Amino acid sequence: MKKVANRPRVVIIGGGFGGLFAAKALAGQPVEVTLVDRRNHHTFQPLLYQVALAVLSPAEIASPLRRVLRRAPNVHVLLAEATDFDKTSRKVRLASGRELEYDYLIVAAGARHSYFGHDEWEECAPGLKTVEDAVEIRTRLLKAFESAEKRALLTGQQKSLNFAVVGGGPTGVELAGAIADFARLSLAKDFKAIDTSKSHIRLYEGLDRILNTFSAKSSRRAEEQLGELGVEVHTNSMVTAVECGRIKVGEEWVEADVTLWATGVAASPLGRHLGVVTDRSGRVPVHQDLSIAGHPEIFVIGDMASLIDAAGVRVPGLAAAAMQEGKLAAKNILADLQGRPRQVFKYYDRGTMATIGLHRAVAEFGTFKISGVVAWLLWSLVHVALLIGFRNRVAVMIEWIWAYLTRRGSSPLITEYQQEESTRLPGEGGI
Amino acid sequence: MKKVANRPRVVIIGGGFGGLFAAKALAGQPVEVTLVDRRNHHTFQPLLYQVALAVLSPAEIASPLRRVLRRAPNVHVLLAEATDFDKTSRKVRLASGRELEYDYLIVAAGARHSYFGHDEWEECAPGLKTVEDAVEIRTRLLKAFESAEKRALLTGQQKSLNFAVVGGGPTGVELAGAIADFARLSLAKDFKAIDTSKSHIRLYEGLDRILNTFSAKSSRRAEEQLGELGVEVHTNSMVTAVECGRIKVGEEWVEADVTLWATGVAASPLGRHLGVVTDRSGRVPVHQDLSIAGHPEIFVIGDMASLIDAAGVRVPGLAAAAMQEGKLAAKNILADLQGRPRQVFKYYDRGTMATIGLHRAVAEFGTFKISGVVAWLLWSLVHVALLIGFRNRVAVMIEWIWAYLTRRGSSPLITEYQQEESTRLPGEGGI
Repeated sequence: MKKVANRPRVVIIGGGFGGLFAAKALAGQPVEVTLVDRRNHHTFQPLLYQVALAVLSPAEIASPLRRVLRRAPNVHVLLAEATDFDKTSRKVRLASGRELEYDYLIVAAGARHSYFGHDEWEECAPGLKTVEDAVEIRTRLLKAFESAEKRALLTGQQKSLNFAVVGGGPTGVELAGAIADFARLSLAKDFKAIDTSKSHIRLYEGLDRILNTFSAKSSRRAEEQLGELGVEVHTNSMVTAVECGRIKVGEEWVEADVTLWATGVAASPLGRHLGVVTDRSGRVPVHQDLSIAGHPEIFVIGDMASLIDAAGVRVPGLAAAAMQEGKLAAKNILADLQGRPRQVFKYYDRGTMATIGLHRAVAEFGTFKISGVVAWLLWSLVHVALLIGFRNRVAVMIEWIWAYLTRRGSSPLITEYQQEESTRLPGEGGI
Repeated sequence: MKKVANRPRVVIIGGGFGGLFAAKALAGQPVEVTLVDRRNHHTFQPLLYQVALAVLSPAEIASPLRRVLRRAPNVHVLLAEATDFDKTSRKVRLASGRELEYDYLIVAAGARHSYFGHDEWEECAPGLKTVEDAVEIRTRLLKAFESAEKRALLTGQQKSLNFAVVGGGPTGVELAGAIADFARLSLAKDFKAIDTSKSHIRLYEGLDRILNTFSAKSSRRAEEQLGELGVEVHTNSMVTAVECGRIKVGEEWVEADVTLWATGVAASPLGRHLGVVTDRSGRVPVHQDLSIAGHPEIFVIGDMASLIDAAGVRVPGLAAAAMQEGKLAAKNILADLQGRPRQVFKYYDRGTMATIGLHRAVAEFGTFKISGVVAWLLWSLVHVALLIGFRNRVAVMIEWIWAYLTRRGSSPLITEYQQEESTRLPGEGGI
């Protein structure tokens, strides 16, 4: 990109919470910003599980980046993939071979789930990070029910379904609870030859309690609420092998028509191209001003960054932290330009929440802990308020009220082309 | 399927307008119905082009078949692909090799666009029949703009975009008008390095006027309205070759970054497995009671059927006709069971309409012809009223009002994984 009026060029890699909030904080400022993303949309990840469970549509939680940034004349969006950096000549290399020059660089390419060295498990146990993941998971869940219905219609054989969720963090808890509601409520009347409510939903956690970043009390409440929905919670249960159709828990194989992966963190491989030593999860250590060692012009933020903040707190990999970091990285660039000193990062903990099924949740704000319907209401309000774009807020609100009143999700669509063969469950013959 | 209480088994192939309306007409009647479809949803085809142009989301025009039929205990939905028929033993063969017995069979597998023996053109000129088609077309259109923006940002080169729509029937007219609005209004402020309104949109029709099933007056009005939107209408223009990036019109090659195909009819190949002589488009000739020669228990309806109705009118391949045929096929099955004579089909022409961009249309009801905003309002009301499912009606209405007020589509999402390479335009180098 050519320099416009000699204004400093800021390149931002990634349009997640960190990158998008950095871009927004730089809108209208005397810098030329280019936001690079492989996708043309920002994804509101906290609600992805609702897309996977067909409560929401992709468009309701994904906002086109250009749309979000349309009113910022100094912010450009580039649909491209960054693959490497030349820190000496200050260039980002793109997959096409082209290069993008920067004066400041903000790397915010996020993280995916980690399979602990077993990437081959992903095919049989997808994680949930993108809209495509959500649609894939929805398709697998729906196909499992379709396949059981087909078997019942054509052969008269009933088969109860088994769903496994690996990882007892917020995502795993939310997925397990939502699958339970999906099977017990949303789909119950859609399938006439099988009883979808007889599905087994199992949540596996390697540690001794789920939601281990929450208090012990919240963990207990979450486990109770999952139990009320019929989810079997297995703690101290390490998943040691994954195949399509079954998983190995400790030494025992367990049937699993669909397995979902919700554990481990693997930061974007781009971190390894920054020439610094990353941690076990591939995260890049950053100074408290969010820049990397020896390169004050390069910031790493969000799930890619490893940081103990100014108050001595390890900053968690949450959307709230990424947003705050995005804003500070932008602020510190502007501070440089104005000759002011940079600020150090201090994580402002707005609280953490996990929702459990249709109207249950646990929430913690410092020492204040709640659970149940009130926590769920709070969770809903906070998430709708955070959703980017007025239109999405209204649409999501309508969907939720509708889903709540009717006790059913809105659109269980399978949208790729369905070869009959592909609806077979692993390990079973053609039906 | 086992017979329940010796009730006659009706198998319906296809969940489009014909099949779905047959299934609905048989709901609660003393028959066991199995509706077989490769997809789990009914698609409201008349609004597909709005999904292609990112005004609506797939979920707003696609209704899960189970959801639509959930209150009919005697109607089962089977996600499967029918591949052949055994008319002697009255069985439908499925792709998996399994068979489905019937006492009555309704074949309603629809049609696709025909490439006049050049199926290889489809890759570079997709048609619009399914939700997947619509998402694919949306992705191609958006990628073309993204690629031009990328070129402008990285090299400073401006390139105006060329879009070609082949076929001047209602679908082609609707697509061309909607692309014009997309480029002139929806996207105008999203792209900052290129001027999307300078795109060339060309509509090619082999005959001497577009909308040739309408009156000459409506054709003229449609052409005028397209002109107001900046669409170049080329009549008497046969497309004789298609490549990715360009098409041949008569003897001349014309640049086309994206080509869309909206002409020709190819009925489902299932028609050829019914053992009757099909017409040039693969349509099955049916008696006026909608059954095929020699097999009163087999009905063929919708776009697969070729029929001169009781009033001597050739029944058109429209949703309205398919719905009416679906209802009559169901009625005639019930007539058989009750020992009453069958009825013959008479097409009730409710009128035809084509919408042109954001608030223009042409409509004809017998000799009554209108165009412009009033026609567009009427078109909107009729289509929202026809949309299956209350929820979709409300959602679509909200989207439209929103799109109308803000003059922009709602969600220009590209939702598959975007490799940077794949955003290149055909014929250009990497950018």
